[in-house]
Amino acid sequence: MSDDTTPAAKSRRNPSHVSHLTHLECTACKKHHDADRVMRLCPDCGKVLFARYDLEKARLTMTKEALAQRPRGMWRWHEIMPVRGPHHIVSLGEGDTPLLPTPKLGENIYIKEEGLCPTGSFKARGISAAVSRAHELGVEVVAIPSAGNAASALAAYGARAGMRVHAFMPVDTPLLNQKECVVYGAHVTLVRGLISDCAGIVRKRADAEGWFDVSTLKEPYRAEGKKTMGLELAEQFGWSLPDVVVYPTGGGTGIVGMWKAWDELEAMGLIGSKRPRMISVQAEGCAPIVRAFEQGLDHAPPVQNATTRAAGLRVPGAVADYLILKAIRDSGGTAVAVSEDEISAALREIAAREGIFAAPEGAATWAAAKKLYARGVLRWSETVVLFNTGTGLKYPDFVDVDLDVVDP
Amino acid sequence: MSDDTTPAAKSRRNPSHVSHLTHLECTACKKHHDADRVMRLCPDCGKVLFARYDLEKARLTMTKEALAQRPRGMWRWHEIMPVRGPHHIVSLGEGDTPLLPTPKLGENIYIKEEGLCPTGSFKARGISAAVSRAHELGVEVVAIPSAGNAASALAAYGARAGMRVHAFMPVDTPLLNQKECVVYGAHVTLVRGLISDCAGIVRKRADAEGWFDVSTLKEPYRAEGKKTMGLELAEQFGWSLPDVVVYPTGGGTGIVGMWKAWDELEAMGLIGSKRPRMISVQAEGCAPIVRAFEQGLDHAPPVQNATTRAAGLRVPGAVADYLILKAIRDSGGTAVAVSEDEISAALREIAAREGIFAAPEGAATWAAAKKLYARGVLRWSETVVLFNTGTGLKYPDFVDVDLDVVDP
Repeated sequence: MSDDTTPAAKSRRNPSHVSHLTHLECTACKKHHDADRVMRLCPDCGKVLFARYDLEKARLTMTKEALAQRPRGMWRWHEIMPVRGPHHIVSLGEGDTPLLPTPKLGENIYIKEEGLCPTGSFKARGISAAVSRAHELGVEVVAIPSAGNAASALAAYGARAGMRVHAFMPVDTPLLNQKECVVYGAHVTLVRGLISDCAGIVRKRADAEGWFDVSTLKEPYRAEGKKTMGLELAEQFGWSLPDVVVYPTGGGTGIVGMWKAWDELEAMGLIGSKRPRMISVQAEGCAPIVRAFEQGLDHAPPVQNATTRAAGLRVPGAVADYLILKAIRDSGGTAVAVSEDEISAALREIAAREGIFAAPEGAATWAAAKKLYARGVLRWSETVVLFNTGTGLKYPDFVDVDLDVVDP
Repeated sequence: MSDDTTPAAKSRRNPSHVSHLTHLECTACKKHHDADRVMRLCPDCGKVLFARYDLEKARLTMTKEALAQRPRGMWRWHEIMPVRGPHHIVSLGEGDTPLLPTPKLGENIYIKEEGLCPTGSFKARGISAAVSRAHELGVEVVAIPSAGNAASALAAYGARAGMRVHAFMPVDTPLLNQKECVVYGAHVTLVRGLISDCAGIVRKRADAEGWFDVSTLKEPYRAEGKKTMGLELAEQFGWSLPDVVVYPTGGGTGIVGMWKAWDELEAMGLIGSKRPRMISVQAEGCAPIVRAFEQGLDHAPPVQNATTRAAGLRVPGAVADYLILKAIRDSGGTAVAVSEDEISAALREIAAREGIFAAPEGAATWAAAKKLYARGVLRWSETVVLFNTGTGLKYPDFVDVDLDVVDP
């Protein structure tokens, strides 16, 4: 086979790849900043930076027909993705996950199945975007505090990019997340504490040792990867949006990213002004967004002594709390906490009825939805999307086995 | 959202779905059989049955352009898939897995990443096809002997189809496979023995209890699902085929299915006569195909006392041995055994260099390829595809962790 027909050669030369990234904009003080240097939070006010694009240019090539014909994966949205040179893209095949009908949960319920992403979770999207852009900007060493899946993803994409990866995780992070990090060759440290404690260590050591801290929403590009979930949802529903999105919320990058995605699609004329009601789901043992929503606050005070077996929901405080709360309120949505028992029961129901082994964070969305149907907040006639953010395979403790053993 | 714009409504009415399935044909005695009744092996000679299609009709709609525009997944090849009514398709989003360049293994090496299939392995393809067709033919109870991943897949797809599932697995099957089966609600029995012992139990009990036995290649449709790996490979290489395919071989349905796929594509004018050299990889502790290949045999006598930690390779005898050996020989390929240590080392190399946590069966292909490059059987200028048949997440015993623990 001659070299220029291989997929690798094609992707190296991909002449159609272009990004219309223009600048970074602070989500709070609205100041503009240079997108082509390594940036984290707004240097002026310390809040979250968003990547901005020339959407007038992007709309010229991002037609529904063109998008449908591109090779699959989240990088087919390249005009509104942050990487300028396609050879900097670090990809393991992330994106374009199935939207599965789940009629035995409800005739109008779908699961967006992020468990089929590389490294088994939606974290692959954000990390692919962040690592690719960091690679383009010359970063060689990255560090992350993580509840588990983000570290797994960073370890994988970092290995693929040839970067050194430092991961800091709570000591009770699921063992499989720890093993993933190790097999990918990351430097892993377990911390007797929560993800917020890990974040504190990374903050201190990153400056001292020259690591780039890819904590979620403390750099501008993980949200760009996550936003592709929202882009896909629009396309999968025929360039409309469902009535309701139920989303498990730890750091909340998915809600923030999808909300941004839909604004960009509307600006390009690809969807209208309708938005889903955004339902944020947290665990009773760690529900800062739910509390803040109920109390009418714009920010969510961190939870003390956070506990839940759904590791990805054990996030006491989110840097983007104000963006999450605004998206929920602007959409007419709500925030719901579910118990550990409700999560376990929902996990089993989804598996036995629909053949999907969801992560507990994903199962929490079904637990929450059932409550909201019962309360009349959700109606069975509405189109509802539950986000399963990862594979249940990483949480074997949720399933007990006691099987018959026989001789042949 | 009105009902007829939802993805579920669209897939229910999908007017373009048609299968050109015509009959079943015995791969040995060549007799034809009715495809529209429940069939297993050839009723005349006991050998493997293949599904046959009207390829002259199929080629009219299976143009390269049309195929590229269809929604993703293995069911977009519906003209040459066995399900007649699209409402019988039981899908979890299987197929269209990434073909990942792995330049740090070798500039011309790719990994076909089946770890991103539903239930984390390539078994999803065969099982989706078999369960869908069984559903169409009225089957309500299915049974399977399995080394692990096939049972996981059958438990998931069976749950989704509303079937009862009976799985029989060796007592030392990876614990995660057992847990998957349990969470999906399957009836699981562990057997003190090998997959061949499990097969014996299923054979006896299936007749007595009216279960449909979906043992690989003992029914005609799992191979049809597996063949979609070959269809995708042709499309992903721009309607050509790579020089070499390296494939881990337990039951061997993948080799058999892909070989069949390429004949069908050639008959429809979609590819030429070039075929990859097929390299079959087995573990030293269970290498019936390798031995038979080396001894010039047409059939592979079963291995006694099969042992390997790569559970999917612990298959002492394959019902399709004659088809596997013929494909290897017709292609100018070979068969190679690798040691447990070579598998473990290869698994770590793939993860640390390329960010892919392969199953040990998949890692075995890189272990084998390295030997063949060293011997000059493979050349670095050739385009080589390694099949990673599943996610490494199900084999946590391959990774030891001994991590630093610190206080915040």
